Amino acid sequence: MLSFRSATRDDVEEIVAMLADDALGATREDVEPPLSSSYFEAFETLAADPHNDIVLAVSDEGTIVGFLQLTFIPGLTYRGSWRAQIEGVRVRSDIRGGGIGAALIEHAVARAEQHGCRLVQLTSDKSRADALRFYEKLGFTATHEGFKRSLDPRRDA
Amino acid sequence: MLSFRSATRDDVEEIVAMLADDALGATREDVEPPLSSSYFEAFETLAADPHNDIVLAVSDEGTIVGFLQLTFIPGLTYRGSWRAQIEGVRVRSDIRGGGIGAALIEHAVARAEQHGCRLVQLTSDKSRADALRFYEKLGFTATHEGFKRSLDPRRDA
Repeated sequence: MLSFRSATRDDVEEIVAMLADDALGATREDVEPPLSSSYFEAFETLAADPHNDIVLAVSDEGTIVGFLQLTFIPGLTYRGSWRAQIEGVRVRSDIRGGGIGAALIEHAVARAEQHGCRLVQLTSDKSRADALRFYEKLGFTATHEGFKRSLDPRRDA
Repeated sequence: MLSFRSATRDDVEEIVAMLADDALGATREDVEPPLSSSYFEAFETLAADPHNDIVLAVSDEGTIVGFLQLTFIPGLTYRGSWRAQIEGVRVRSDIRGGGIGAALIEHAVARAEQHGCRLVQLTSDKSRADALRFYEKLGFTATHEGFKRSLDPRRDA
């Protein structure tokens, strides 16, 4: 059986290791010990924000087997509705295909419904063919283009 | 000359009218007076959230000519980086093509850089061909599929 809980600071190293255990994530993260303080600072910001949560899927043995970030965004569109957004979904690479990802997403969707959200949205890299099929099977429709523009936050530093 | 400012409660009616003045928005919004209190409640939530802002582009005469919602999302990915998200972009329909949309987006991008964001993201409905070209010209790349799943928040009510 899976259970779900919010991440704590003690989970940050394991979360970052799982973020990096991925073809795209490996180029973005820095898992050299000691783990960069930027991860802990980001976690503290996130944990202090009532509209952001990192949701962990945990096995019976207490092992983290997957996670995602859930963000609630208030807005005026759709008669002033909340929307929920999912980012940074990961399932432990050695146990994919066992339904953990689907259970995580459905847990997030249920939380979004409880919060009164009108929709749940996420973007998925077009190179992740398996992920695209996965979200379609879960009732998501790729009605939108997902645009990104990189910034260099150090430009003005 | 354009100037930019955060929306106030007094701007809500005009913002909603502009949201509805659009092929897709017309089906989503309810502009029958008196304006639904759900819009004002959503605005109060948004205005109280330091990570959300509705940015107005205002003409010399003080007229609202465009707006967007800017959301800063903390996260662990990219070494614990902020990302900026843009939603609900509108330019007054009778003055499109005059550079207001581009100025609004660049203003939002500059604010994202100041905030230390690693990227700016947005999704655009695939049926909005003009908008897709517009974002590509502004340096955004459609690397991702934008998935949405509708919810009925009243289901459990």
